[in-house]
Parts: sequence; structure tokens; C-alpha cells
Amino acid sequence: MLHLGPHACEEALARGELQMLRIAPTVWARQAKLRAAAREAGVPVHQEPMESLDRRAQGQRHQGVVGEGASLKLDSMESLCRRVKDKGPGALVLALDGITDPHNFGAILRSAAAAGADGVVFPERRSAQVNEAVVRASAGTALRVPLVRVVNLGRALEELKEAGAWIYGLAAGKGSTDYLNEPFDRATVLVLGSEGEGLHQKIGEACDGLLRIDMPGGTESLNVSAAAAVMLFRVLARRKG
Amino acid sequence: MLHLGPHACEEALARGELQMLRIAPTVWARQAKLRAAAREAGVPVHQEPMESLDRRAQGQRHQGVVGEGASLKLDSMESLCRRVKDKGPGALVLALDGITDPHNFGAILRSAAAAGADGVVFPERRSAQVNEAVVRASAGTALRVPLVRVVNLGRALEELKEAGAWIYGLAAGKGSTDYLNEPFDRATVLVLGSEGEGLHQKIGEACDGLLRIDMPGGTESLNVSAAAAVMLFRVLARRKG
Repeated sequence: MLHLGPHACEEALARGELQMLRIAPTVWARQAKLRAAAREAGVPVHQEPMESLDRRAQGQRHQGVVGEGASLKLDSMESLCRRVKDKGPGALVLALDGITDPHNFGAILRSAAAAGADGVVFPERRSAQVNEAVVRASAGTALRVPLVRVVNLGRALEELKEAGAWIYGLAAGKGSTDYLNEPFDRATVLVLGSEGEGLHQKIGEACDGLLRIDMPGGTESLNVSAAAAVMLFRVLARRKG
Repeated sequence: MLHLGPHACEEALARGELQMLRIAPTVWARQAKLRAAAREAGVPVHQEPMESLDRRAQGQRHQGVVGEGASLKLDSMESLCRRVKDKGPGALVLALDGITDPHNFGAILRSAAAAGADGVVFPERRSAQVNEAVVRASAGTALRVPLVRVVNLGRALEELKEAGAWIYGLAAGKGSTDYLNEPFDRATVLVLGSEGEGLHQKIGEACDGLLRIDMPGGTESLNVSAAAAVMLFRVLARRKG
């Protein structure tokens, strides 16, 4: 069971996954709209004082709304690979290698959702997991983008290769080429490592190519979620023509 | 006086603005390197227990390092406009209209620094101010990018226009054009509004053009700092050829 903030409640409601809405007595227009929509959809709505919502939200911003939703549904590699095959050169997937900060993880999911990514793959270990903090940081979009948790990220990349995808690792080091030179005209997987350590060696070796974002203002200074957004929208820009 | 995290300490040290370094007894390689560099530069280094650093950092992550630096130096509109005139078509400036969240503000400064922006303009009121939380969220880069705080953002945009810049507002609404169609071959100012409310009406009207980022995954779902990163690096991509 996840406790959801206002954005996530809207998402969950749209997907028929909102199970209960708790809302403060005095609300703003957006919250009132959500309350009306929840009632219309037959979702139970409870009025609760702000202090009670504060406790439920455990210190997170809630803006007078705390919802309860079904646990997150995870997608499978099999279904993701099928989707990549079906879409062919239009496919776009993210793989996260050791992103442990929930805020970054959520921010990346939000950009992936905005870019219409076909899925986000992340490992069971040495990674943030998709909990309430991540859903919140994603503004609820974690409920929309297909998420695939895998035991072995390297094997998952091999499976994506077999499904026809080209695997790009984002890495500033040697052997990397300027991301601006890539046409991204094939099914594409973008692999992002942690800010501190970058890609794990085995993951870097599993990539078909390493890309870097050149930064006139100095090296290594782009946040990983900013880098994800830049890469995702570069792929879209290239494909648009 | 600012209390600085590890990234910000490195920045401040490089700029000769680190005044004191407080560091935990047991440190990792990065912290040890910082300690050695501070000693070499003649900056006083105090060893303190983690609990004491916790108190100084006021609940923020500090990774065993809390520095003290000079107050942030702000730049003037006069100096920014002179730089825009001198650089001509290569100039790139951000203007923030009502970005109140310190995390977003800091994340935007970090991307602006990475993109080598010539300055970031923000208003005195209805805006986050550049405090410790912002410096931290910027990973210390707030000390590097020229910051200009103005009384009246609309007037600041007029001055930038007179200096030869073209003013683009980021806005999803009507009258906006696809950002991918812009060549960005003139001195460019990108104006970002708050996620909730977008640009204030007068600021939108002061812009020479409104740009939107089309999102295949649905509308209004890109975080403002992700949008800033996408726009900044699109400008660089266009200018690179």
C-alpha cells in the first residue's frame, strides 16, 4: 500500500488505482477537483485535519491530500522486450545502474514518463527502490511509466540487445563520443550510472557505445536527472527530424 | 556566512573563498583530498565529531564536511548586460520567474553552470533566494555562475533586450512554438516560470517569443529543472552546428 501525494492521487485515480482519499477540511481548487473526481469514481473520501495528514505523510509535503493506492505494478523483461521489438527504431528505454538517491530516481522517472519512454529497468540491489519517496519525487508519474526490476542488469541489457536495441552508456571518460553525433535511429537503451561512481565496469562493457555530454562550463557538473532529461529529449529531437 | 557541503567547499576553495573547514575524524578519499588542499591553501581545518557536524549542517547531508565561506557575491545587471553585448550571438542567460523551491532553484543553477551560462537573473520577491539549501542543491556551482538579483524582472528583461538579447519564455500554452524549431543563433535569454503557475502575465508579454517542449508522454509533466537542462543543452547543440 502506497501513501500518495496530490499528483500521484490524480495519476492513480486516472488509472483506477486510487483506493481511498484523505483530504483536509479547507482545500484549494486543485484539491477540490480531485475530491469531486474521486467521489464520482466511487472512491471513499475521508475528511481529516491537517495535523493528521501531516502524520500520514511522514514529513513529506502533502498539500492537504493523502491518498492510498494499490502497490505499484512492475512490468517484466519479457513484456518490455516484446514492446521494443514491436516498436522497432522508435523504442526508447532507460536503464539505471546504481541510482540510490530517491529524489534523483523519481526525477528520472518523471522525465522518462514525459518523454514517453517504453520502460525503465533497474536492479534489485544497489539501487533506490520504487517507494513512496520515489513516487512523490516523480510527481506520481512512477505509476505511469513501465518499471522493470531485474536481478542482473547486465543480463537485462543482453536481452534488450537481442530484442534489437542499441545500448548506450552515459559516461564522461575515455572511449566516449559526443552524444550530439548520434542519430538514435535504432531502438535505444540509455544506461545511467550514479553521479559519484558512474557505470559499473561490467555494465559499461556491456554497452554498444559510450556517450558523453560536453559541458562548456566544466566537467562532471550535471546532475544525473538533468543528464537523463537532456539525453531523453535529444533522442526525441533527433527522431523528429 | 554560508555553511557549505563538500561540493561547495571544493568550489569555494578553488575560488579562494573557503574560510574554514570542519571535518569528521574518519573521512573518505574525497574528504581527505579536500582536507589536504585546504591545509595547503592555508585554510584553518578543525576536526569535529559527526554529531557536531550534524548540528551545523542543520539536517542537511554533509558527508563529514562542513565549510564556512564568504557570503555569495552577486553580480549586477550592468555587468551582465556588458557581457551579453561582448559575447554577442554566443551569450546565454537564464531568468527565473517565481521559482520558489530551493531544490529546483539549486538544480537549475547547477545545469546553468554546466552549460556555461553567462548569468542567472532572479527577482527579490516571489523567488527562492540563494541560501545554503540552494547552494547545496547546486552542488556548490551557485558559487561559480554569475547571479543577478533584481527588483523588477520585467525591467531586467528590457535591459537584456537593449543589450541585444532575444528573450524566450518557456510556456506550454497557446502562442508557443516548438523549441526544436529555434536556431538560437542570437544572444539568448531563457525565462522559466514556476511549475504550478508558469510565467507571470507581464513577464510572458515581455518575451520576444514563447517556446514549448513537446512531450510524447503527456503534457505538463517535466520538472522545471529538467526543462531548464533540456533547453540549455538544446541551445548548445544548435550552436555547435
